[in-house]
Amino acid sequence: MTEQKPLVLFHPAPKRLERVFDADTWQLFQEEFEVVSFEKNPDEKLFDQLLPNAFAIVGQPDLPTERLRAATKLKALMNVEGGFFQNVDYPTAFQQGVRVLGCGPAYAEAVAEISLGFALDLARGISREDRAFRKGTEVYLGKTDDAVLLKHSTVGFIGFGNIGRALHRLLAPFRVEIRAFDPWLPDATLEENGIIPATLEETLKSSQFVFVLATATQGSRHLLSKRELSLLPDGARLMVVSRASVVDFDALMNQVEDGRIMASIDVWPTEPVPVDHRARNLEGLVLSPHRAGGIPQAYLSIGKMVLDDLRLIRRGLPPVRMQIAAPEIVGEYQNMPAKLVAR
Amino acid sequence: MTEQKPLVLFHPAPKRLERVFDADTWQLFQEEFEVVSFEKNPDEKLFDQLLPNAFAIVGQPDLPTERLRAATKLKALMNVEGGFFQNVDYPTAFQQGVRVLGCGPAYAEAVAEISLGFALDLARGISREDRAFRKGTEVYLGKTDDAVLLKHSTVGFIGFGNIGRALHRLLAPFRVEIRAFDPWLPDATLEENGIIPATLEETLKSSQFVFVLATATQGSRHLLSKRELSLLPDGARLMVVSRASVVDFDALMNQVEDGRIMASIDVWPTEPVPVDHRARNLEGLVLSPHRAGGIPQAYLSIGKMVLDDLRLIRRGLPPVRMQIAAPEIVGEYQNMPAKLVAR
Amino acid sequence: MTEQKPLVLFHPAPKRLERVFDADTWQLFQEEFEVVSFEKNPDEKLFDQLLPNAFAIVGQPDLPTERLRAATKLKALMNVEGGFFQNVDYPTAFQQGVRVLGCGPAYAEAVAEISLGFALDLARGISREDRAFRKGTEVYLGKTDDAVLLKHSTVGFIGFGNIGRALHRLLAPFRVEIRAFDPWLPDATLEENGIIPATLEETLKSSQFVFVLATATQGSRHLLSKRELSLLPDGARLMVVSRASVVDFDALMNQVEDGRIMASIDVWPTEPVPVDHRARNLEGLVLSPHRAGGIPQAYLSIGKMVLDDLRLIRRGLPPVRMQIAAPEIVGEYQNMPAKLVAR
Amino acid sequence: MTEQKPLVLFHPAPKRLERVFDADTWQLFQEEFEVVSFEKNPDEKLFDQLLPNAFAIVGQPDLPTERLRAATKLKALMNVEGGFFQNVDYPTAFQQGVRVLGCGPAYAEAVAEISLGFALDLARGISREDRAFRKGTEVYLGKTDDAVLLKHSTVGFIGFGNIGRALHRLLAPFRVEIRAFDPWLPDATLEENGIIPATLEETLKSSQFVFVLATATQGSRHLLSKRELSLLPDGARLMVVSRASVVDFDALMNQVEDGRIMASIDVWPTEPVPVDHRARNLEGLVLSPHRAGGIPQAYLSIGKMVLDDLRLIRRGLPPVRMQIAAPEIVGEYQNMPAKLVAR
Repeated sequence: MTEQKPLVLFHPAPKRLERVFDADTWQLFQEEFEVVSFEKNPDEKLFDQLLPNAFAIVGQPDLPTERLRAATKLKALMNVEGGFFQNVDYPTAFQQGVRVLGCGPAYAEAVAEISLGFALDLARGISREDRAFRKGTEVYLGKTDDAVLLKHSTVGFIGFGNIGRALHRLLAPFRVEIRAFDPWLPDATLEENGIIPATLEETLKSSQFVFVLATATQGSRHLLSKRELSLLPDGARLMVVSRASVVDFDALMNQVEDGRIMASIDVWPTEPVPVDHRARNLEGLVLSPHRAGGIPQAYLSIGKMVLDDLRLIRRGLPPVRMQIAAPEIVGEYQNMPAKLVAR
Repeated sequence: MTEQKPLVLFHPAPKRLERVFDADTWQLFQEEFEVVSFEKNPDEKLFDQLLPNAFAIVGQPDLPTERLRAATKLKALMNVEGGFFQNVDYPTAFQQGVRVLGCGPAYAEAVAEISLGFALDLARGISREDRAFRKGTEVYLGKTDDAVLLKHSTVGFIGFGNIGRALHRLLAPFRVEIRAFDPWLPDATLEENGIIPATLEETLKSSQFVFVLATATQGSRHLLSKRELSLLPDGARLMVVSRASVVDFDALMNQVEDGRIMASIDVWPTEPVPVDHRARNLEGLVLSPHRAGGIPQAYLSIGKMVLDDLRLIRRGLPPVRMQIAAPEIVGEYQNMPAKLVAR
Repeated sequence: MTEQKPLVLFHPAPKRLERVFDADTWQLFQEEFEVVSFEKNPDEKLFDQLLPNAFAIVGQPDLPTERLRAATKLKALMNVEGGFFQNVDYPTAFQQGVRVLGCGPAYAEAVAEISLGFALDLARGISREDRAFRKGTEVYLGKTDDAVLLKHSTVGFIGFGNIGRALHRLLAPFRVEIRAFDPWLPDATLEENGIIPATLEETLKSSQFVFVLATATQGSRHLLSKRELSLLPDGARLMVVSRASVVDFDALMNQVEDGRIMASIDVWPTEPVPVDHRARNLEGLVLSPHRAGGIPQAYLSIGKMVLDDLRLIRRGLPPVRMQIAAPEIVGEYQNMPAKLVAR
Repeated sequence: MTEQKPLVLFHPAPKRLERVFDADTWQLFQEEFEVVSFEKNPDEKLFDQLLPNAFAIVGQPDLPTERLRAATKLKALMNVEGGFFQNVDYPTAFQQGVRVLGCGPAYAEAVAEISLGFALDLARGISREDRAFRKGTEVYLGKTDDAVLLKHSTVGFIGFGNIGRALHRLLAPFRVEIRAFDPWLPDATLEENGIIPATLEETLKSSQFVFVLATATQGSRHLLSKRELSLLPDGARLMVVSRASVVDFDALMNQVEDGRIMASIDVWPTEPVPVDHRARNLEGLVLSPHRAGGIPQAYLSIGKMVLDDLRLIRRGLPPVRMQIAAPEIVGEYQNMPAKLVAR
């Protein structure tokens, strides 16, 4: 007699199946697990009916207390969007021993690479000179007075999580001096990575390149307001790649308009950005419409992570590929499923 | 009695003093050496008169046989432009034990960094999406179908010299598989660096990202013509950063126009590029007006390299910072002083 | 009114206070927490009396179900010995939301460094030639026929946990080809680290240097028995640094005695090793009396990790320095508190 | 008509053919070049007779002025022992455009690896505890009070040449702070490598691990005498791996005997070391009989380097694998062919 396949409820909205699973992985997933998909038909009644036998939920449908109480066999809740939403009774989930998993790590490399690309663009004026070239106003062998090397420069990290770690690895050959401000980490964790722990103020004051990598929480709203931005050295380059809410955009626009600093921006307070937003005309900006993390390789790695971790959990082993939610802070994230590519 | 200061003839044209020496280095240079400058007044007669006592020449004025024969105390000829020009009787210089030195290494980091910047731009469409954003046609959380990671990709180097080595270091954290074609190097030299030695064809066929880093010699002209470019895999990214003559530009434009490959171009067959050149309108290009190496930090490092090496030579030690010309090939370079920032 | 200091029960046996806390850290610990020490006076009655108000327990005293049920305010159980002992009702601890933390990471660097030292010793015969020198039988400029480079060699990891990761970092500059066998990890986790996932057999057959880093569980007992050891290539070097039970020692001694392989051994089936054990006379061995992890810097980092994580937990944040026990496997470890330096 | 094969005179003494060429390389060498061997029959007359047509000499036989004058077609003189001997009229060789090449780089990796092995041995007492174990006096889980991590420690380099560079790469993951004293190098060269340039005194005073890598010249004799050694911090580890003459051995023995510092020694003032030398009984030493560089892989790489460079030179290209002698200092080396493994 063969072992019964564990039941997995697949409810990926707002993600679509094809985004997160390639054909091969999806097939393996179905061979090894009894997958019931609610992707196209989010039948709540059927969901509730199957829940008591569910081994795992892939996606993050609403899971209030009573639903979780019914899910007595549930081992894993696997978000395939990014961070964690506030539609789950997390304390109950943890009490029942459910592994709550996020797919943030899937995006870390993609965000780290484009962040380095933004920094090198701002260091050297790559997109600015490309625009000039297309207008016919390019200058040969010149116009490099504000060009700088990343090598041996000073770098600041606002937040040192998944993305920070991936970016830190990419920066190693540049022999930069890195300061990081991360109130969730003790100094020793940064020091072990060769990073100087610093206050927000020190980080901003001492860094020619600053990467904004902080998660959106209540505490991080407008962490970089006018006062903080004015601490940046002249000619600093600011890469805004995590959450728009961390930065006071009016203050940022003012500083860039004045030519005091340069910035790349991938996340915006309102998306789409108004047609007449002044950002669209500022030479000191690199503009990017929320596309740092969401590339095909990143999305498709989510399905592989889900399958790998489900296999481990089934064998009585801990998951290792997805991000394990920390009970202490999972309730803090201000993510909204509809809009974001969580990181 | 103090030792007499060695005589140095300073003849930096077409470079200007302020470009290559910062104030402090220039002052030290003058304190330690008897510097006679021909920068603003290229008085040939005075030059010839001082030559017999010259310890070093900084710059690369014409040095035919007879002039070199007169320069019996000459220890070093230090090019401060980039490569080596064909206005010197090199065999005689070497026979007389003159160190012939170039400043190519000064630019290597700057070129390597912008080359990585170009690659990341093409990998993710950074400048293309910036342009769309400024036109108001940006797409949020999407339009990333052609976006790829550099990490774990395949990379090809056409040429593995100063720039290749600097770039190779920057690529280390991306764990890419690198092939290199360099007919001047034995396989073992590449293998020691963890690079797969390959023919030109193999390198092109097997690499998603190809960096053109070859020096301009007779042998390298149109090394990448139509046939070779067609070997590149679909969606390949080509970074042209050394010499335009290495690539057949018509063939390159055709392939980019067809959307088969993408490219960044920093060096052009004729500069300035004609106003109506089709390159200016191709979305698959990143356009750069010959500015990969010439940034202030690179230029100002030249003076420091000159001073460091002169100090060593004066102490009877070999120079270590500038590039030591190889007698075997110094006559091959097709550099022209007026236009280029040699790499 | 000042906030009350959280109550911490300090019960470090078999570790002593001075081993794990330096004076400064101990003072800070006492300033910030209400520390009651049971180190010298393990008063069970007092312990039970204080337990209902305890915020954390540092050490790992017996915690059966009833004791845990009484510890309603307990947030953390922090083992300061190494791994996790089987004297705690772990399911109840997890259900109550207690963080169960181990200090394994404290030893990882120390074990990784000595493991590399063992490998280089065996590669070059360092301790063997030192012994010969002391006997007066040294040979100059010779006797290196069995000496090999670690660089570009093949390496196998049996287990890829904390130590494996630390060792993997140290091996990076040697450009070795690494295979790893770890049944607890999916292939992708190894591949992301540039490691080739392999079966135990493939790992042994293909590796000149093999590091035994597996944890002791029922499944890992005599993982390397006669058959497996005979798969190692001639002249292989085996570094036994995690648990003796993983290796069949008789079979290992036989192979080393035959001169087929060499080995370094830090952990032994019975300690002390019998005086007449043949290992003491084998030239192909490097002998080490269970001292890979336990060095002062490692021990004293434990106190710092405890303090850092307690501070985070007090602030409502997740711990980041100690190892977070996985509910799935915490019951599997076959560690015994009295003897081991857990890794 | 086929091109004539260039004539190579093979005169490797004191090295033997089988040491430096494996069978395959030797065969290729003979296929591509007309090799006349003087290994077993050093027929001086034949040598003189062939010299005028010689393209290269592999080995370093006596080459006084008159011999060199006769060697009008000579392109390369390739030492296969290590450094450069003083039996050649170097100025004339350089004037005639002969490439003078050494095989020092062949040994760099081997010396770097064993140097790191020595450092880790001294850091942790690997060979000392192995000796105790064999005597039956081992202590389990203890006796580690003087054990230290290499990670995050301070390191000093006395000399930064081929070996220093190879070792520097191996040390990268240990995140050590490195100071180097090298009077032949400007500060910038060290700084570019992330090393702090320092005086000899500063280097000694500030470094827990000191690697002696300096070449033997008149200037370096007893560079580390009593005064300098006493600057080392208590508990410092000194790795003597280049030339014995750099260190005052009496002073070194005294310091080790006092237990103030520890040392590994691979090179000795007189070899063999007297039977009753006190070094043989000092617990604080790791003893090695001049075997850091000379391992089979290093020796056999010499033949490959010779062949690779001869091929390049034949094609009119500069050699890239062997060390190019600097005219300024080639006359300074105090190497003697009979004894040394040059580095």
